[in-house]
Amino acid sequence: MKDIYISDLAAFEEGKLFDGFFLVLAKQQRNTKNNKPYLNLILGDKTGQLEGRIWELNDPRISKDVERGDIVKARGSASRFDERLQMKIDQMRKAAPGEADLSDMLPSTQYDVDSLWRTVMASVESFTNPDLKLLLTTMLSDPDLAAAYRAAPAAKQLHHAWLGGLLEHVVSLITLADRVAPHYPMLDRDLLLTGVILHDIGKVTELSWEIGFEYTVEGMLLGHIQMGSALTEKTIDRLPNFPPRLKTLVLHMILSHHGKLEFGSPKLPMIPEALVLSFLDDLDAKMQAVANEFEKCAREGKGPDELTNKVWSLDQRQLLNTKRWLGVEK
Amino acid sequence: MKDIYISDLAAFEEGKLFDGFFLVLAKQQRNTKNNKPYLNLILGDKTGQLEGRIWELNDPRISKDVERGDIVKARGSASRFDERLQMKIDQMRKAAPGEADLSDMLPSTQYDVDSLWRTVMASVESFTNPDLKLLLTTMLSDPDLAAAYRAAPAAKQLHHAWLGGLLEHVVSLITLADRVAPHYPMLDRDLLLTGVILHDIGKVTELSWEIGFEYTVEGMLLGHIQMGSALTEKTIDRLPNFPPRLKTLVLHMILSHHGKLEFGSPKLPMIPEALVLSFLDDLDAKMQAVANEFEKCAREGKGPDELTNKVWSLDQRQLLNTKRWLGVEK
Amino acid sequence: MKDIYISDLAAFEEGKLFDGFFLVLAKQQRNTKNNKPYLNLILGDKTGQLEGRIWELNDPRISKDVERGDIVKARGSASRFDERLQMKIDQMRKAAPGEADLSDMLPSTQYDVDSLWRTVMASVESFTNPDLKLLLTTMLSDPDLAAAYRAAPAAKQLHHAWLGGLLEHVVSLITLADRVAPHYPMLDRDLLLTGVILHDIGKVTELSWEIGFEYTVEGMLLGHIQMGSALTEKTIDRLPNFPPRLKTLVLHMILSHHGKLEFGSPKLPMIPEALVLSFLDDLDAKMQAVANEFEKCAREGKGPDELTNKVWSLDQRQLLNTKRWLGVEK
Amino acid sequence: MKDIYISDLAAFEEGKLFDGFFLVLAKQQRNTKNNKPYLNLILGDKTGQLEGRIWELNDPRISKDVERGDIVKARGSASRFDERLQMKIDQMRKAAPGEADLSDMLPSTQYDVDSLWRTVMASVESFTNPDLKLLLTTMLSDPDLAAAYRAAPAAKQLHHAWLGGLLEHVVSLITLADRVAPHYPMLDRDLLLTGVILHDIGKVTELSWEIGFEYTVEGMLLGHIQMGSALTEKTIDRLPNFPPRLKTLVLHMILSHHGKLEFGSPKLPMIPEALVLSFLDDLDAKMQAVANEFEKCAREGKGPDELTNKVWSLDQRQLLNTKRWLGVEK
Amino acid sequence: MKDIYISDLAAFEEGKLFDGFFLVLAKQQRNTKNNKPYLNLILGDKTGQLEGRIWELNDPRISKDVERGDIVKARGSASRFDERLQMKIDQMRKAAPGEADLSDMLPSTQYDVDSLWRTVMASVESFTNPDLKLLLTTMLSDPDLAAAYRAAPAAKQLHHAWLGGLLEHVVSLITLADRVAPHYPMLDRDLLLTGVILHDIGKVTELSWEIGFEYTVEGMLLGHIQMGSALTEKTIDRLPNFPPRLKTLVLHMILSHHGKLEFGSPKLPMIPEALVLSFLDDLDAKMQAVANEFEKCAREGKGPDELTNKVWSLDQRQLLNTKRWLGVEK
Amino acid sequence: MKDIYISDLAAFEEGKLFDGFFLVLAKQQRNTKNNKPYLNLILGDKTGQLEGRIWELNDPRISKDVERGDIVKARGSASRFDERLQMKIDQMRKAAPGEADLSDMLPSTQYDVDSLWRTVMASVESFTNPDLKLLLTTMLSDPDLAAAYRAAPAAKQLHHAWLGGLLEHVVSLITLADRVAPHYPMLDRDLLLTGVILHDIGKVTELSWEIGFEYTVEGMLLGHIQMGSALTEKTIDRLPNFPPRLKTLVLHMILSHHGKLEFGSPKLPMIPEALVLSFLDDLDAKMQAVANEFEKCAREGKGPDELTNKVWSLDQRQLLNTKRWLGVEK
Repeated sequence: MKDIYISDLAAFEEGKLFDGFFLVLAKQQRNTKNNKPYLNLILGDKTGQLEGRIWELNDPRISKDVERGDIVKARGSASRFDERLQMKIDQMRKAAPGEADLSDMLPSTQYDVDSLWRTVMASVESFTNPDLKLLLTTMLSDPDLAAAYRAAPAAKQLHHAWLGGLLEHVVSLITLADRVAPHYPMLDRDLLLTGVILHDIGKVTELSWEIGFEYTVEGMLLGHIQMGSALTEKTIDRLPNFPPRLKTLVLHMILSHHGKLEFGSPKLPMIPEALVLSFLDDLDAKMQAVANEFEKCAREGKGPDELTNKVWSLDQRQLLNTKRWLGVEK
Repeated sequence: MKDIYISDLAAFEEGKLFDGFFLVLAKQQRNTKNNKPYLNLILGDKTGQLEGRIWELNDPRISKDVERGDIVKARGSASRFDERLQMKIDQMRKAAPGEADLSDMLPSTQYDVDSLWRTVMASVESFTNPDLKLLLTTMLSDPDLAAAYRAAPAAKQLHHAWLGGLLEHVVSLITLADRVAPHYPMLDRDLLLTGVILHDIGKVTELSWEIGFEYTVEGMLLGHIQMGSALTEKTIDRLPNFPPRLKTLVLHMILSHHGKLEFGSPKLPMIPEALVLSFLDDLDAKMQAVANEFEKCAREGKGPDELTNKVWSLDQRQLLNTKRWLGVEK
Repeated sequence: MKDIYISDLAAFEEGKLFDGFFLVLAKQQRNTKNNKPYLNLILGDKTGQLEGRIWELNDPRISKDVERGDIVKARGSASRFDERLQMKIDQMRKAAPGEADLSDMLPSTQYDVDSLWRTVMASVESFTNPDLKLLLTTMLSDPDLAAAYRAAPAAKQLHHAWLGGLLEHVVSLITLADRVAPHYPMLDRDLLLTGVILHDIGKVTELSWEIGFEYTVEGMLLGHIQMGSALTEKTIDRLPNFPPRLKTLVLHMILSHHGKLEFGSPKLPMIPEALVLSFLDDLDAKMQAVANEFEKCAREGKGPDELTNKVWSLDQRQLLNTKRWLGVEK
Repeated sequence: MKDIYISDLAAFEEGKLFDGFFLVLAKQQRNTKNNKPYLNLILGDKTGQLEGRIWELNDPRISKDVERGDIVKARGSASRFDERLQMKIDQMRKAAPGEADLSDMLPSTQYDVDSLWRTVMASVESFTNPDLKLLLTTMLSDPDLAAAYRAAPAAKQLHHAWLGGLLEHVVSLITLADRVAPHYPMLDRDLLLTGVILHDIGKVTELSWEIGFEYTVEGMLLGHIQMGSALTEKTIDRLPNFPPRLKTLVLHMILSHHGKLEFGSPKLPMIPEALVLSFLDDLDAKMQAVANEFEKCAREGKGPDELTNKVWSLDQRQLLNTKRWLGVEK
Repeated sequence: MKDIYISDLAAFEEGKLFDGFFLVLAKQQRNTKNNKPYLNLILGDKTGQLEGRIWELNDPRISKDVERGDIVKARGSASRFDERLQMKIDQMRKAAPGEADLSDMLPSTQYDVDSLWRTVMASVESFTNPDLKLLLTTMLSDPDLAAAYRAAPAAKQLHHAWLGGLLEHVVSLITLADRVAPHYPMLDRDLLLTGVILHDIGKVTELSWEIGFEYTVEGMLLGHIQMGSALTEKTIDRLPNFPPRLKTLVLHMILSHHGKLEFGSPKLPMIPEALVLSFLDDLDAKMQAVANEFEKCAREGKGPDELTNKVWSLDQRQLLNTKRWLGVEK
Repeated sequence: MKDIYISDLAAFEEGKLFDGFFLVLAKQQRNTKNNKPYLNLILGDKTGQLEGRIWELNDPRISKDVERGDIVKARGSASRFDERLQMKIDQMRKAAPGEADLSDMLPSTQYDVDSLWRTVMASVESFTNPDLKLLLTTMLSDPDLAAAYRAAPAAKQLHHAWLGGLLEHVVSLITLADRVAPHYPMLDRDLLLTGVILHDIGKVTELSWEIGFEYTVEGMLLGHIQMGSALTEKTIDRLPNFPPRLKTLVLHMILSHHGKLEFGSPKLPMIPEALVLSFLDDLDAKMQAVANEFEKCAREGKGPDELTNKVWSLDQRQLLNTKRWLGVEK
């Protein structure tokens, strides 16, 4: 396990030396104003990102064989420039196998992945519709798919942008949907939960998360809505006797879950379950974005009277943390 | 109680005489193509509306003193013209006091109003925040306001457009909010429920529901958002020591509950409780609109393979009744 | 072959008796103002639609067993009501087998379907990319798919809304794309033509055209973009060694061909071939709509100085027929 | 009075020492590239803002007790970096009481506030409607409200963003409305002027202007439209016999003055007076923005052939100063 | 002069015979439900429009030679059908020369055209800029143009849709602009007034007003903005030494006067005079539309508590007549 | 001819001295952080732009008389700062007459201008409509206009932003239109080609291209649509007997070629030729933008798996180079 995380550095004494393991997310050679070449690195770990600078390219303490995607051990000191943290790197080498853990190198869910996974499986287990139960059991018991589902982030940036984020988002939605479903008797609970579990499954191929979070080229060209519906359709077509109307509804849940054409859904929700899914998905993503912003404000030491920065996924709105603001009043 | 309701007439034998009590929603003299004057009435009862025609103006069996807003007893026969039902009226007179019940004359909630009301009061009773509890107790114990709150429709058309509709919508939201609130620990449950109970309270003055459902002139010029926030502010200002920040938050809940500026909210939701309220309010209204459409399809005898008509409040979408459609397959 | 077509009736002497074969598109019982029941039918043939009325339900010359979807022989006379043509039906019976041809009953392309089909096949034959050639050959040699492709309309209303309309639209686009492709050397001609031939293939399941042109329920819920991409993907997955990147591009062509998210494409065109396809598809549909409007004006006897009615698919624009307008000047 | 203003510095010889009094709008410690800590200040006075840098934190000539909101006396020299002016501060201490005037520290109207105020009062005096006259007299004779009304800016940035800006904007509108009102006999002049005087009165609580111009948290959550209408309603409710319909109209004027829902008005103007108010308010704000831009161009030495920068409140339009451009031609 | 006007008929006893002169705006043969042919005419005079029906085509009292554009003398009786007035015509013949006045046949301004024209000329006379004065004098002294300018309506429907409407609208704007101009010293009054007088001058060729108000084909294809700017440019190019910059500004005033690209202005207002012109033009058109609606309500006998119908040019808003509504309260 | 071009510098050894001729696009004096004044220049040649810095203002090797618009000979070395190339200038003087060629100083078409011009003239020669042929011959034989037409860029930035860009774009459209026209028999080829050749002709006065590419003030206020239609109308009005309807159509082609009001066309295309022109113009501009982006990616050394940057004129889309991406797969 790592000793020092990027998030610790904010409180670190400037100039003091430290060692750390980081994932190299990007690497570029640049020149100073005085025409001196230097290396600029983007280093990451599970707590954030950091720019690193190597001023002496030929210093023998700097390994030449480091590339994007490597885990490195680096020694140096932190400084702050125009409010952003920077690391001056004095020594750097590739990490030896076993020295560092990839899971420490990317942000990842703070929940226990096994426990989240069990929640999904228990939900499927509770289905009364045998066709939907078989469909989900089939998909989730595919080892490659299950592994990817457990690892994938839910987004490149915005909400749940961390390893396990997809799973965490789905589990939150399962719980939420299970609370809401009984309130509207016209809803078919199993169909709604099927939509919850499958709506973003295309993200396992739309995104890559080995070295930072990126869209794959296929993901850019096709999108997780098409990818998820195609994967689901392929599985259904291999199941004997899956009812064709039920297949149409399951695919419709996936296709329409963004709720609006301009958000990339080729169809608007036209059944009650799809309408509810699109609402809950949107609400849960936004609530997570709000929670993120409040945490960021706390980390940055903002006072209870200060609003958050403008939040991109909430139309550039600023938000107020009710409990902290009221707390001050009491 | 009435014997014959407008909704019964669809299945009625055309031309057969019947008697009924109706509320006169509109009354106009017109002329036939052959220049013969006749009376055109819009008659309503709790199950719907019906055009009535009186061809012989001077028939002594037709009272001359009937005006808009009167309850009448009418005898005549039904016919269908261009798919709409029409009543040919042979006799008509004002109902005598006690003969008919106003509550039979306008559509009204199918739930027990007292029971709905008790749910609201129980919800308030469960509050832990003493200021919010006092605010709501104060408002809801005002007899005029309570009577209006119990009677008002939630809208002129669209969703919950019936007597008691406001209360029914609020009770649905209370249950829904109570299911959702525990899912997001950052939510202040009492503040959320306060928003639920007060968000549409301005409708008691925005709308009138004595003779059909109409906007008041004041309602047109000010809107229920301003009217509700003004009423709430006035009450708060009379409470000793109501915390000023809490007042701001309560008013913000009301002002922002439409969720978008273009829907008439002067402010976007900027606290988690307001964000959740705007989502749940929108979801509940849309689910009720869907339920209405499905009922209408059933009444009109549409088959399980037929989609609903285009639904105005759902962007002119057509909807499919999942359960009926799947039912056919099995 | 039919003797009298609906389009002929405009010039027909009112009241004069005629016989004709028609497809029953809809059938409903209604009542007159005087409460007399009558039958209202929507009758169609390849040249248009016509409302038919049967006033004497019990006339023995009116068969009781006629249903929606039947071809009937009807005798009666035409009249005009509020500018719309109507037929008063005196006699009506189901057509005997062989008496009438279904192909006369729905509007259909004025081109020779076999010849259109040969153009498509010749285009495929000209491909130099063996994978794309194999893909298209495989799909188009499926007899069910080929039959549907040859029969399907391109739309329910708007452009190319007739039997063979899909094929006609595709052939027009093949020619157009073959003219445009050499102009931009960066274009991969075979990929562009593959997109042209497959972009609307989902319409064979999105629409039904047996009794008038309708959306299927599956078509409403999934749309031809998803249906076409799923059908294509399924075929590709059965071909050995189809290059995965090429598969992505072919699917992207289908997914993005509407050119805008708000038109139901889940992805915008991101490769030159997809950009060109979306332009040409839109242009060809609009030019066909313009041609339709000009023909309609000619049929209705509008003068060269009169603009068309407002055209829905051209933002409610009115259009002017250049050649006719200039012709008058000369 | 101050000797040197920030606007003077543009023409100042770089490097030459000067003294000045400034308001500290913000204060932050940062580090140089070489990890040396320094202080960054935002200094303001009535003519503009300036970044100040203190490189030697422990220099005894730099007081340690300076905070945001203090007026300081600073000595140093100006330099220009990437087109922005910066001050290198060698000495700094808090201003002694009486040494500097707060009114010199924030931009403020160039008009005489007493004279502006008299114009408002004279306008009220000229009313013939006794109820509206009493309403305005009551509100404007409240000493706290009057003081705030005289001091408040009309906006945080955009138009009239200076002390007294609200009053200046209102006086401009009074004159303008008095010119326009007689042109449309259907207008009730007193109601229009009441709207002019009250439309932005909520800004006295929406904004704060002690240390720079900021939104209050309450202002962010409620907005000046709600705040102004609540304040007005509260006053009206204390007046005996204020006609209820007139109250509705006054509140409607305030609620609708932004003219469009998407600009935060919960109601569109529905009476002629509100329609005119929304036009004149918008026109006056835009004309002031244009005037500001032209002054800025003159200050920056732009030639008569150069357009202004893109103006945010005019849809990013660039503007041309007619008179200067034509002047060159003559 | 005419004795009976269409607006009088609303109060006319149904069935009573009357004579009147009307302009035939449209003429069409139709059939009744029972297949009887009849003539449908749209008749107009200065007070409105009326549908006329001739049931006996071969009645010798009905002239056969009446065409669209003729003035006729008709005798018949009025009736009301579905709230619309209709005339049953028993006799009809072309008016003899001198019997009726064309100026009675189309709605026209209620102001004296000579007096309006003198206001325009006096305004031009007051210019201090000799170039603009010469430009306007030159244009307005062209007899054909002057005649058209005095006769043209300002629109086909919407605002000022009557003979002399263009002139009336311009005169209203001259007065308004002369009230507003001194308020903003940066405005060049003569340039603003030039824009006022010329902004809609293209309407003299965009519209035709001989038989009702229609767009010409050229008007549809080019629009009054292009037509007006071309006419102005042509005149300027014939004036010796007209300053080229001033020409650019005058043309810019015309091009930008709709204020928004989506309203058909190819350029947004970029000089203060153009900004003011676009505001005042929009305001004056809307105020005239409001006045029209209020008059219509009065004519239709609506009460002071009733809002107007939805007004197309005001985003489907309903309006309230302040003075009438308040009047009731007092 | 120049020896070194700006595009060569990317591959140049940093710090190595070189000489070059450049056009001075802008010149400004600035100060360093340490208050030392320096000169900042924007230098351009046909391959791009470059920032140049002169640190020693009084160095005798730096001429004092250099101004914006001059061609200079400069000696210095290149460095890279924050990914942008910069030149440190040691010596600089004005170029002597004949030393450098202005055509080397601005980006210009890579095609032969004479050859492009001959294509336009040949196209006109092929017209069968004598009026349109005469119109174009007249315009293009005006030597000033022809010279400007051959030199003008098609845009300031975006597509075809180089000398000869207008001509290159038109020639591309001529070829494209000639390919498309025969596909739609309803098109009048000569009218379409007239639109192609004249649609952007207003750019010769909207833009200036002597010192970089800028909008003229007249161009900003009037736009190339008005300028082009005015120029065309003026020419037509001098031709004897040009048919007035044809004139209307030619002007309509120019006015409507942007295809949408919000893109600055005051009229939507209402004839088939205008519809086709607006499509082809848009397609050709976008395809050129795509080609530019692909070239830029190649220059910057991006791999075949990397998408382009977001493209402004394609709604911020990123694009993929089909051929390169597929090439890798094979």
